[in-house]
Order: sequence, then C-alpha cells, then structure tokens
Amino acid sequence: SFNRGMQTVTLIPGDGIGPEISTAVIKIFEAAKAPIRWEERNVTAIKGPGGRWMIPPDAKESMDKSKIGLKGPLKTPIAAGHPSMNLLLRKTFDLYANVRPCISIEGYKTPYTDVDLVTIRENTEGEYSGIEHVIVDGVVQSIKLITENASRRIAEYAFEYARNNQRTSVTAVHKANIMRMSDGLFLRKCREVAENYKDIKFTEMYLDTVCLNMVQDPTQFDVLVMPNLYGDILSDLCAGLIGGLGVTPSGNIGANGVAIFESVHGTAPDIAGMDLANPTALLLSAVMMLRHMGLHDYGNKIQTACFDTIRDKKVLTKDLGGNSKCSEFTADICRRIQDLD
Amino acid sequence: SFNRGMQTVTLIPGDGIGPEISTAVIKIFEAAKAPIRWEERNVTAIKGPGGRWMIPPDAKESMDKSKIGLKGPLKTPIAAGHPSMNLLLRKTFDLYANVRPCISIEGYKTPYTDVDLVTIRENTEGEYSGIEHVIVDGVVQSIKLITENASRRIAEYAFEYARNNQRTSVTAVHKANIMRMSDGLFLRKCREVAENYKDIKFTEMYLDTVCLNMVQDPTQFDVLVMPNLYGDILSDLCAGLIGGLGVTPSGNIGANGVAIFESVHGTAPDIAGMDLANPTALLLSAVMMLRHMGLHDYGNKIQTACFDTIRDKKVLTKDLGGNSKCSEFTADICRRIQDLD
Ligand SMILES: CC(C)[C@H](C(=O)O)[C@@H](O)C(=O)O
Ligand SMILES: CC(C)[C@H](C(=O)O)[C@@H](O)C(=O)O
Repeated sequence: SFNRGMQTVTLIPGDGIGPEISTAVIKIFEAAKAPIRWEERNVTAIKGPGGRWMIPPDAKESMDKSKIGLKGPLKTPIAAGHPSMNLLLRKTFDLYANVRPCISIEGYKTPYTDVDLVTIRENTEGEYSGIEHVIVDGVVQSIKLITENASRRIAEYAFEYARNNQRTSVTAVHKANIMRMSDGLFLRKCREVAENYKDIKFTEMYLDTVCLNMVQDPTQFDVLVMPNLYGDILSDLCAGLIGGLGVTPSGNIGANGVAIFESVHGTAPDIAGMDLANPTALLLSAVMMLRHMGLHDYGNKIQTACFDTIRDKKVLTKDLGGNSKCSEFTADICRRIQDLD
Repeated sequence: SFNRGMQTVTLIPGDGIGPEISTAVIKIFEAAKAPIRWEERNVTAIKGPGGRWMIPPDAKESMDKSKIGLKGPLKTPIAAGHPSMNLLLRKTFDLYANVRPCISIEGYKTPYTDVDLVTIRENTEGEYSGIEHVIVDGVVQSIKLITENASRRIAEYAFEYARNNQRTSVTAVHKANIMRMSDGLFLRKCREVAENYKDIKFTEMYLDTVCLNMVQDPTQFDVLVMPNLYGDILSDLCAGLIGGLGVTPSGNIGANGVAIFESVHGTAPDIAGMDLANPTALLLSAVMMLRHMGLHDYGNKIQTACFDTIRDKKVLTKDLGGNSKCSEFTADICRRIQDLD
C-alpha cells in the first residue's frame, strides 16, 4: 500500500510560531522523503471530570497509539493556579527522561566551539514533587523526593543512550556532600548501573564543579545524568553555550515506549504568523526523533542540510543573524536535501 | 601609639598553599601601608565537649573580638562523617551571606569580557538544612527550609550592598514556578524589601533562565540574590566566566558584624611549599575586606597594582600563563604599589 513502511507521529504544532515552524518541518521531511505520516493534534488542556486539567482525549489516544510525538511551543500556563503544560505532559505520559544533545553549530558564533555533550535529566521527581508545607508562620518546607526506582531508571536510560549513541562517558551530577541521603541514593543507583556498562566510563561530579568547569571548558563533558532541578539548570546552561533555545533540540522519553520531541523555546507571539520564525530547534528535535525511531539515514540527511544552510550564512532567519524568512530558510534546506540525493 | 588607627584582622592561613599566599598578602599589605594588624589563628576543628566538632577556642575568641577574618584554603573534611569546615564556620559565626564579585580581569583571557556582577547567596538554610529521612525503603526525602527571617535578612543585605557599592539593580533568582511556597516566600520577601530601595531596580528571574542568559551575555546582570543551593551553583558558574576560583574573591557576612573573607579554591597540595601558588584570589578577597572595613583607598590601590601586574603579563604565576614564582608575582605587585605613591 501507499503507506507501506510509514510510521505515524502525533504532531502538536502548538501556539504562536508553532504552526509555522511545524509547517517548515513537514516540508523538510517531505523533501527528505522521510517515511512519516503526521497526525495533527491539539494538546492544550481541558477541564476533565472532577474539574481536573487533562489533555484532550483525541490527543491522548493519538499519542498512545503512535507512541511518538513532535511538539512545538505551547502558550502556558493555561489558567491561574494551573501547572504548566510541560508538567502536565510529563505526568500524563510519565516522561521520565529529558534528553538534550548540545552540539556546537559550525558557523553560528558563540563563545564556545566544539561543544558536544548530552544532558539527561530525571523528569518526574526530586525538587518537582510539589509537596510543600507551612511549618509555622514564616517557615516553609519543600520536599525533594528521590526514589530508588526513578534513579535506577534514569541511570539505565543514560547508559543505554551512551552505548547506542557512540558516547564514551557518563557523569553523574550531584550534591551528595550536602544531600547525603537523597542525592546519595541517586548516586548509588548510578554506580550500580555503571557496573553493567563496563564499556562506558563513569564519573561523579558536584553540580557546582560541573557549572564551573562547563563554562571554562565544555569539551571535557560527554553524557551527563542528574536529578530533576539540576537538569533543569544544566540543560538550559548548555543550550546557552551553543546559541540558546532557538537551536537546541530536546526529547522526552516516557514509559511504555512513548517519546515526545520538542523545541523548548517560547511561542514568540510578537513575530507569530509573520514568516520570521527560526524552525531549527523543532527541526533538530525532529532529527532526534528520527534517530530514536531508528531512521538514522533520514535524520543525518536532514541535519547535514540544516547545518550546511547555517554554515553557508546566505539564507538565515533574523535570530540567526540573517534577513531571510522562515519559508526561505526552509526552502534552502529542502534544496540541499534534494542535492544530497 | 604605634598602633593608632590599626585594626586587627584574624588571619587563618589554612593548609597546603594557604601559608604561602597568606605571606604574599601580608607583604602586599605592608607595601600598601594598610593599617591592619594580623592575629594568626588555626581554625581546624577539634573535638569539643560531648564529642562535637568545634573550632579551637582561641580562634573563636580572636574572631569574636576582631570581627573580621581573612582565610586561606582548608583541608576538609577533617574526618569521616564530618561536615566540611566551610559548613562549620558558616554555622559558628552565622555567616548568612556569601558575596562574590565577579569582574573580568583585563589581560586574563576567558570567553567573556566585561563581566561585572555580584552573586549574593543565602548561606544558612534552604537545601542545606541537613534534614533528610528514609520514608520507606528506596524512598528518601530531603527538606528544603525557607524562612521569612533569613529571606528578609539576605534581601536586605543585597539591597544595602547594591546601594553601598554603586550598583543599580538587584535580580532575585528563584524557581517559584515549581517551589511555589518556599521560593515563593523568598521572592515575596525580596519584593517587600525592594519597596524600601526605590533607587535600585528590582527584577525576578527563573534560575534556569539566569543560567541560559548568563553564558550568553553576562553583562546584563548586576547584583543577583538567591537561596543557598542556587547560590552555590551560580557563584561557581560566574567564577568560571572570569577565569575560575584562582582569581575570584569571596566574602561571608555574619551576624553581629562578623565577616570572613576567603579564597574559595583548594589547598593544591601538589604545589604546596614550592613558591608556585597564585595569591590573587586571597588578595582580592583581602581587597573586599578592606572595602568592607571602609578602607577603600587601600583596597583600590592594591587592586590596581594586582590588575596592572596581570595586564602587563610579564610576571605571572603558572596558572595565569606565566613562569614566575609566587614571591616574584608578589614583589611585582609591591613595586607597583610603591610606584603609585
Ligand atoms: C516551565 C517549567 C515548569 C519547566 C521546568 O522548570 O521544568 C521548564 O523550565 C523546563 O525546563 O521545561
Ligand atoms: C564544600 C561545600 C560544602 C560547599 C557548598 O556546597 O556550599 C562549597 O561548594 C561552597 O560553595 O562553599
């Protein structure tokens, strides 16, 4: 049939510039003849039974079936007192690992060259437990929750990722000198899992030391794995090293084979609909997705074309230092893909 | 008398390279005729009554009297199961504010120029409460404690510091989108205090956004104030921007007028006693100390001489890219101070 070998991906274009950059990705995938069939869905939360926020059933069903999502930016929070859509999606699909490859893009100047590392963030617990209390007036506690299961799961994911992506080392990032029991447990699980991956070098480093060393020489790092908050910080810091959220891809790995790839920049309402947006972060997230699906050749082809366009500097969107429109940038990438064939 | 106008400072030379770099500071202060009388003490913890670790009574008494300390690096932890000397000193003297001015040093090349910011870290509570529990097997919680009093105190310190040091803005760094109650309380106190400092611009920013923006353009920041762990991270990150812990000064402000200024690098046992150490971090900490004591002229003179020596590039220690000994670097600074007179 026409759809032989085609795989379905749930496309969540999102808000603001989301639809434009999604269109760009669709066009580039077409040019690359990537065997993907898009099923477009809106995930913006609705009030479910009992007044709880939930993502619309047809979006949930699509994701449950396709297992793979590609998501643009979402306007969030939806309403006062509501957690962000990011948190809701993490919870709905148990997206336990946030993965961010940060790789310097040739031709796009930042203070660093040769950054080539991946942050892997535990995405479900830690400082994000949401458990807080007022003890007495003026004294508040927040609870950081670390479990053996979540720590083992993220450690295993990190080592598997390293092995499957030709990476040679994993660094566990922690503050077990201060949080001896919680970060201590996280670290112990990393050590245990490391025992099963003798082909991957394992090191441990304090979060403060990682930050210090990261801005001095990021090339010393490879795969980094860490609890939730540390990952929130380090993943954005590392994105900054290579040029920011506009060029950094991101993937969220969930239970039961679900995964959602997304650009983590905002909706940029000021330029929405003006054909000025930069689709790079969503496109590189889509490339991660292709690799995750085992479609490495398509992923490599698209990434090469995108990097060539950027290195060439002739057709760039404004934020990348050029004057071109989103559609022109997209067309340049498509042309290069066709030339590659 | 001979000591007219002299102020006493408790000098804690510390371990490893500590004595050498302390000697360097003493010599430079002599050359600058700084009106400081040093009272040397050893703070390495001893077992007190009931087996609790404490700093030796003569060191405690000296600090209680002089109020001002200058401290080199300490070999730490002292023994297994013991908190670090840093934590013990913070506790003993209620050192509630850690202050780190990070200012680019002309001639010392890093990926950034024109960094000129100050991190102010709450140093007594937050994630460092030390309260942790095993809930059930494999589930651990750590408690982050935020109080109204400590939050108000650090916010007030930050705004006072800004005002007294010709700084124009204070940014509160937080994750109140996640830790609504604890970071929320911290933020509320910052806002309240800001009301009393209409001459200082107040902004709020998420920690992840600060990290991202910091590595992209640190010049946008001025004074930053934040809870304990965020400060641990950001102060080291910012030190990295200007060349690392070897050139970054630090001060700890305590209750009752106590303050301890210190270099935050390690003891470097591999080069200890070899006249190879770089005294810059301790010297710039001593300059902070002079300013804190109101001795701005002496502080400025010493800082100018130190920066001139570094900019000149002729007499530098190895870590700064030169071949000179600690004593030669020190002598060059002393000569410049005498020339300035
Ligand atoms: C929006 C916010 C809840 C979120 C977080 O803190 O995790 C964001 O910073 C992220 O990294 O996805
Ligand atoms: C040694 C350690 C306890 C300490 C901390 O985490 O606070 C250190 O990193 C610091 O910043 O002084």
